[in-house]
Amino acid sequence: MIDFPDKRPENHPMPFFRDNIEAMEAYIPGAPADEAGVVKLNQNENPYPPSPKAIEAMRQFDGASLRLYPDPLAGGFCRAAAAVLDVPAERILVGDGSDDLIIMIARAALGAGRKVVITDPTFPYYFTQGLVENARIVSVPAQEDFSLPIEEMAAAGGDVTFLAAPNSPTGATADLEKLGWLASQLKGLLVIDEAYADFAGASALSLVGRRPNVIILRTLSKGYSLAGLRLGFAVLDGPLKNGLLKTKSIYNVGPLPAAVGAAAMADQAYHRLCVEKILAERTRLAAALAGRGFTVWPSAANFLMVRPGDGDAGAVYHRLKSRGVLVRYFHTDRMRDKLRISIGTRQENEILLGKL
Amino acid sequence: MIDFPDKRPENHPMPFFRDNIEAMEAYIPGAPADEAGVVKLNQNENPYPPSPKAIEAMRQFDGASLRLYPDPLAGGFCRAAAAVLDVPAERILVGDGSDDLIIMIARAALGAGRKVVITDPTFPYYFTQGLVENARIVSVPAQEDFSLPIEEMAAAGGDVTFLAAPNSPTGATADLEKLGWLASQLKGLLVIDEAYADFAGASALSLVGRRPNVIILRTLSKGYSLAGLRLGFAVLDGPLKNGLLKTKSIYNVGPLPAAVGAAAMADQAYHRLCVEKILAERTRLAAALAGRGFTVWPSAANFLMVRPGDGDAGAVYHRLKSRGVLVRYFHTDRMRDKLRISIGTRQENEILLGKL
Repeated sequence: MIDFPDKRPENHPMPFFRDNIEAMEAYIPGAPADEAGVVKLNQNENPYPPSPKAIEAMRQFDGASLRLYPDPLAGGFCRAAAAVLDVPAERILVGDGSDDLIIMIARAALGAGRKVVITDPTFPYYFTQGLVENARIVSVPAQEDFSLPIEEMAAAGGDVTFLAAPNSPTGATADLEKLGWLASQLKGLLVIDEAYADFAGASALSLVGRRPNVIILRTLSKGYSLAGLRLGFAVLDGPLKNGLLKTKSIYNVGPLPAAVGAAAMADQAYHRLCVEKILAERTRLAAALAGRGFTVWPSAANFLMVRPGDGDAGAVYHRLKSRGVLVRYFHTDRMRDKLRISIGTRQENEILLGKL
Repeated sequence: MIDFPDKRPENHPMPFFRDNIEAMEAYIPGAPADEAGVVKLNQNENPYPPSPKAIEAMRQFDGASLRLYPDPLAGGFCRAAAAVLDVPAERILVGDGSDDLIIMIARAALGAGRKVVITDPTFPYYFTQGLVENARIVSVPAQEDFSLPIEEMAAAGGDVTFLAAPNSPTGATADLEKLGWLASQLKGLLVIDEAYADFAGASALSLVGRRPNVIILRTLSKGYSLAGLRLGFAVLDGPLKNGLLKTKSIYNVGPLPAAVGAAAMADQAYHRLCVEKILAERTRLAAALAGRGFTVWPSAANFLMVRPGDGDAGAVYHRLKSRGVLVRYFHTDRMRDKLRISIGTRQENEILLGKL
């Protein structure tokens, strides 16, 4: 190749990207375990394996069919999920994990001059998407007791309001009446992220079709032990679905995760068994940690937010890590004296308690 | 739930989304086959099944490990692809298909006040992403003979220039020298989409690291018979990768497609065999169609752009469809007298010729 001179001035600061992109940092997820034998309680993964029927669906999958492009809407999975949730299949829209759906919503409804409302603390990826879209980000602090600031979020009047219920890392949630009230107050979209709803025994699904602005997000990552499958979905009304289809990647969910996910959701007996074990362990671990001087906040999810008696959560985090137990530590003002601990198996939780 | 009054005015035209999103249409992909036995030559799928080693990787995959979040960068796959392409693994960034990478680029580098340059005809999804990002879209017509308008695209001065080489639906491509010259002329990003490069016997990969603004896109959908796997990747320099990481969904590629894709790429012997068969059929089919009065454009890809002698491509499309053969027909000005026909197996191509 002839080496044509580069037209870009020397030492040019690489302005290939938009200014807001250049200025922001990428989202950094919780660390994977870098060695075997680590007790991993830092990413709210389910401690039990996926349904044997899901694994069987993977083994039986017709590999030769992978040469073909899939159904862009993963209709088979939508019908399986719809049957479990008792909603029309047409109201389901799949995502490559719920991350993908959060991006689809942000691209369709945010941008310069538009406002995204979140609470603090919450899943930081909502904030990241506000930055990517160059939107105005209004972060409403959780109440003193970390309950969700529903009235303040209504007053903030977002074009999009992201609310995780149950919320991470606090475990706090809000009941259907409050969420319905919030939806009624907002002129923009209300995205209720129910990633942890399997552990809450409650859902705001019934708002879809009653409120034109509600999108419910679900994932198979937590309750169905399929964080590695990358499969989430939205439940939403037709006009909202038509909007998100415009920002969806063409074939965002392949037929293999669709088949595995459909089998996992259809196996409700196994799902309930895993959830029940986690709820029993949540109660037991909360009591045990309280008995060791920790403050333990009420949790509707598969993790606990806790504060050690002396408030030195950083020291506890590092001590546990050096002893082969990973928990989550956040360096933010309200969280630096606390830890988020995923509920493991009974054995894992015993190891955690032993190492404290 | 108490039914709080809706704050939105009656008959409100659902302004939940940005104006440019409300105004645009969703991208519609080529139709899947709705019945068995159809000869499917409309989506440039590979007519051969994926490598047996790829299917074996799926069967051997540890399903229990799906409970865990994956490596967000799919490092194992990157190393496998890097070994095949002889590039550093750090220069590879995975996508949920190359659609996902096109979106990551559009989100990072486009937006109101920025310009995207494409050619016409080309893969329509670049245009769709320009609409989503509300960018100025400059569409440069292909030359009279459908060769790529490299000089005109350079002169158009895009913040992002998307160029498929080989291009679809024409099959035209550009050599390394021309692409290097184009990169040198542009102040913005040059995205060379090499979805069909496996069939071209040429690649612009060597521009990465020599030109700071070049991103090469690759996919396993065509050459590796894995359209259903949803796995593509970009080859790009560190600063560009750091930018796209900001718009990437956290875990866009799961460990299952990563493992299957790595096995497929590692099996180069099988890959070469499939490509050779397709190239031989491309030559044979081109001659046979020319013998039947079709104009056949030169193609570096796994499809042919052809024009029936009487120019009534719509009639040929419908006749073939009624006889169980799907080809692609586009309703645009320069394409309405032409068809795009994917190269099938010898048997499929014989059926096509028989039905004409």
